[in-house]
Formats: sequence, C-alpha cells, structure tokens
Amino acid sequence: MKPHHQRVAIGIDFGGTAVKAGLVDETGVVLDRVQAATADICARSAWLDFVGQCLRRFGAGRRRRPAGIGVGVPGFVDFKRGYIYNLTNVPGWTRVPLAGMIRKRFGLSAFVDNDVNAMALGECAYGAGRRFSQAVFATLGTGVGGAVVIDGHLYRGAYSMAGEIGHISINQHGRRTPEGRGGLETYVGNMRFVAVATRALRAGRRSVLRGLVKNDLKRLTPKTIALAAQRGDPLARKIFDTMADCLATAFASVTYLIQPEVIIVGGGVAQSGRVLFDPLRRHLRERLHPFFAERIRVIPAVLGEDAGLIGCAALAFAAPAGTRGGR
Amino acid sequence: MKPHHQRVAIGIDFGGTAVKAGLVDETGVVLDRVQAATADICARSAWLDFVGQCLRRFGAGRRRRPAGIGVGVPGFVDFKRGYIYNLTNVPGWTRVPLAGMIRKRFGLSAFVDNDVNAMALGECAYGAGRRFSQAVFATLGTGVGGAVVIDGHLYRGAYSMAGEIGHISINQHGRRTPEGRGGLETYVGNMRFVAVATRALRAGRRSVLRGLVKNDLKRLTPKTIALAAQRGDPLARKIFDTMADCLATAFASVTYLIQPEVIIVGGGVAQSGRVLFDPLRRHLRERLHPFFAERIRVIPAVLGEDAGLIGCAALAFAAPAGTRGGR
Repeated sequence: MKPHHQRVAIGIDFGGTAVKAGLVDETGVVLDRVQAATADICARSAWLDFVGQCLRRFGAGRRRRPAGIGVGVPGFVDFKRGYIYNLTNVPGWTRVPLAGMIRKRFGLSAFVDNDVNAMALGECAYGAGRRFSQAVFATLGTGVGGAVVIDGHLYRGAYSMAGEIGHISINQHGRRTPEGRGGLETYVGNMRFVAVATRALRAGRRSVLRGLVKNDLKRLTPKTIALAAQRGDPLARKIFDTMADCLATAFASVTYLIQPEVIIVGGGVAQSGRVLFDPLRRHLRERLHPFFAERIRVIPAVLGEDAGLIGCAALAFAAPAGTRGGR
Repeated sequence: MKPHHQRVAIGIDFGGTAVKAGLVDETGVVLDRVQAATADICARSAWLDFVGQCLRRFGAGRRRRPAGIGVGVPGFVDFKRGYIYNLTNVPGWTRVPLAGMIRKRFGLSAFVDNDVNAMALGECAYGAGRRFSQAVFATLGTGVGGAVVIDGHLYRGAYSMAGEIGHISINQHGRRTPEGRGGLETYVGNMRFVAVATRALRAGRRSVLRGLVKNDLKRLTPKTIALAAQRGDPLARKIFDTMADCLATAFASVTYLIQPEVIIVGGGVAQSGRVLFDPLRRHLRERLHPFFAERIRVIPAVLGEDAGLIGCAALAFAAPAGTRGGR
C-alpha cells in the first residue's frame, strides 16, 4: 500500500455466504480487503478472531488507528444499541450485542446495521445517491431490501427497522407470508423470475432462453433471462415487464408517501440495464399523477458488490449520513 | 377576551365549503374565530378582504402583533414558496403565490400548506401526537389525506407533496384513477361507504340501517353506518371490517417503509370509535411481522374540527414542527 493521509475505517459485510472485510478511506475507496466463508467463521469467537486478523493485516493500531468498525448484517438489528435481534440464514446469531463485543475486544468504536441499510448508505454517500438528500434505495436479490434517506441521513424509523420495501403490499389479497399479504418480494424475488420463466418454457413457449441454458432449465438464472431480454426475446421481455410493473406499484406508493428525489435500484437484477429500467420508469409514470411523475427519478446503483463494504465503513466515519448515537 | 400574554398566530383553514379563521395562542387554544362561506369570498380580492376583516377583529396590530398567518388549502402547494399549484373544488385558485400576497398586503409573515398537512401539524403539536416524534397522520373523509412527521417535523418530501396516503396502491390491478391504480381512497372514501351499504340494502339485505334512515336510502351517511355498527348490526360491522382491512393494507406498507411510532387517524369516520379501530388494529396486526406489529400504535385524532385551524396557526409559530424556510 502506498502512503495515505485520509482517515480510514473498517467495513465488514457479514453475508450469509461470505464475510468481507475492507479497509476504506473517507472518499469511499477500498484500500485493502479480506474475505472468509461464513460457514468457516460463524461461531462468534471465530468471527471475532477473523476481525482481529483483518485488523492486523490492515495495519490498524501500528500504522494508523481506524475511525471505527462498521458491520452490515443480514437481519434485524437495533442500530442504537449495536444489537442483533437475529440473522436470516446464519445460525447462532440471535440476540447478540455485537457492537459492544467488538468495542470490548478491540477498543475501537463499532456500529452494526442491517446490510441493506449499509449498502444504501454506501450508495448514498459515495455512489448513485451522492447528489441527492432525499432518496430511497431498493435492492433486488433473493428478496427485496430497502432503505430510506431523509435530509441526507439514513432514516431508521422509530425502532430502527424502517425501509422494508420488500414487504410493501401490492395486492391486498395476495399470498400470505409471515410479513403479511401480497408483499412486493413475493412477486419480484430472484426465485420468482426463474419460476415464471421455467413454467412458460415447460408449457412449450418458444424463447432464446432454451438455447442459452442448452435446454437444461435448471440452469436458468435472472442473468440468463436478462441476456435473453437484451436480445429482444419476447418471453424474457414480458417477464421483465411484469416484474417492473410490480416494482412500479410499490415505488408509486413510496413516492406518494415520502416523495424522494430519486429511487436507486441495486442488486443483481438491477444490472440488467434498460430491459429493467425502461419498463420500470414507464409503469411508474403511468401509476403516478403528473405532479409526482415529473419529479421522481429511478436510477441504477453504481457501486456494485462493494456498496455494502463501503457503506459499512461509512457507518464508522462520523459521516453526514447515518451515524447518530452509538459511539 | 381576557388579557393574554402568550404569543398568538392567525390560522386560516381554507376549505371547499367554508373558510375558517382563528386567533390561536402558542398552547394551541383558539381564542377567537370567524367563518365565511367559501362561495362568498372565493374571488382572490374578496378572500384577502376577509383576512383583513379577521385581522381587525382579532386586534392584530393594535393590541398585539401575531407571529404570522398560516393558511391550509385543499390542494397541491409548494410550501417553501408559499405557492398554490391548484385547489380541488375552488375555481380560480391555480398558480397563486398566496404567501407573498399576504405578506405584501398585511406585512406579516405567511405560510401556505396543504390542509391535511396543517391538520397533521395541529394533531402532532397539540393533539394526539404530542408525545410522539415519528408519526403518520391519516384523515378519512371524501378522500383519504395524510401527512408524515419525522423527528418532530412535518416531512414534506423533496418537492413538498409527500404524505398522500390516499394514493397508496393496495391493489396493483385495481381501479384506474388519475393518480394510478387501486389507490386506498378508491376503497375507503365516504362515498364508497355509502355506496356499499346502499347496494347491499337494495339487494334485500336486512339491517337496522333501513330503520335509521326511515327507508330513504338517500339519507345514508357514514355516520348512520357507524351508528348501526355500534348497535351490532352485521351489515354495518361487515362494511367497517372491509374498510378497516383496506386501511390496514396501506398502514402495513407505511409501517414497513418508515416505521412510525404511531398512526393517528382523523376525519369524520375516525369518530366512529371501536367499530373502526378494533378491526383496524386487528387487521394491521395480521398484516405485519410481530417485530413491527408489537411496536406500532393506531390512535384516533383528538382535536376534531379545530385541528386544521390550530395546525395552520402552528405553521406560523416558529414551532419545533414544520416551519423551515419561507420566512
């Protein structure tokens, strides 16, 4: 590493598959990174040992003291207390006062937030949202995550659980889940993309998708469907159009309620480009009064897979966005 | 009027039927009030003359100088500029820089906001929301209005149009309106209440409603339906239950997105008491994950018809809630 005079912080993106740690400077540049499989370090002590290794590798303490450690986790947290209620898909992480544990062991200030909040913070502080102070962030993956930025700060709601765009109901009598009925993510999750395409192909629908997966429907992914749509395949286009209208229904409700300047869409499917964004913008326009339609923008996230890491580090800088309390 | 040492402000609740003006003190007490029929003073010059009369009657200038004039109007406004885009049901009020006109003529600071925002501000500063700093306000009338309070301030969104709860879509493929499809207020407006009851009665459904309106179905109002429900009438109860579930669908989405501490429900139908609030709370609980359900409260507004007047005055006090810019 070359000499560097910016302040730095450690971001830890704690995912269900991998734990990624990064040394990030105050302009959002990732200076160094380490990764481990979640399965290998999912015992709490092993997890903390991993953080210790990262700190040594990043030269924390010796060369320079980081502003703090920010952790993004896939589940419900109490940001103020740095407390994990429970994590989806990571056993043994229920009721964990993680920020306190990190502070005690490493003597650094620590912050714990929902992973999507962290991504949103990364995108808003250093990515697509840089120019906006009222923004909503949605990430399309297995489910649909979200976060709300108000006056340049991440808005966590009264009990730090706000931003659950995936549970916004778009059909009152839709499918029941533990989160309610007809939630957005029951319509637009990755599995749903694949399921809809598989069903159509099994029913004999012609499509370039068949060729793309060499007739093995198990190999269908949202990415292959995006590729087919980009080539003009009518089935794939129709699937994107249907998904886009579901997203537009929820985004219209979001716009009527809090009228952000921009809705930033991230996650794998958001990298599909115009095959997603063209119908999404069109349907949203159709679903809004012109006063609202003229003023709302929908743009793709730009930080890609680093958004989480960078956002976690941003939690630790006393940045304009999102670091009230906790220190 | 007895001597009074509080600061005062003038609130003007500019409705489609009546224009109500009030002298309000800083504790939210209405000290004096005047009312005129909107039809009689709807020319702009007549409207300003009415304000002049109110100022003289309230002793503004002579005895004490009010903190300012706050006006609530039924339509779209730009709060920062004190500018009316257009008013629903009041002809001739399109593109009116009202705050500037008031300032110029009377030399007082002036604020113009949407009437529901003003009601919400009144309820939040002086009514049911006094103890809360994260609140959402919904008012049930001909349509469904709403407002959002964040960190104790009215949140107007990026372009001062936020809070349109009535346009939140609860059914993606619902009825089309200029505001989109399946908006909440297409299901729970006053007319809808009456239409559903009328249809059921015409179809021969037994109900105490018949007696309450002496068999003249044209006399059905939301109030008679509430009365019947309070007496245990199954048809009226069913109507309230259906409406409550529609409200709950939108309120669940609101809760997932911004997680307020409380949702305050005002307007005529909200005065029905438990026949509305019992099913509303039950359906909302069913539509939320327990983490959210345990933390959200739904309570009735308490200021009644004065909420607007008091809230308009609150706009003019440099109160904690809602008076950024404009002065």
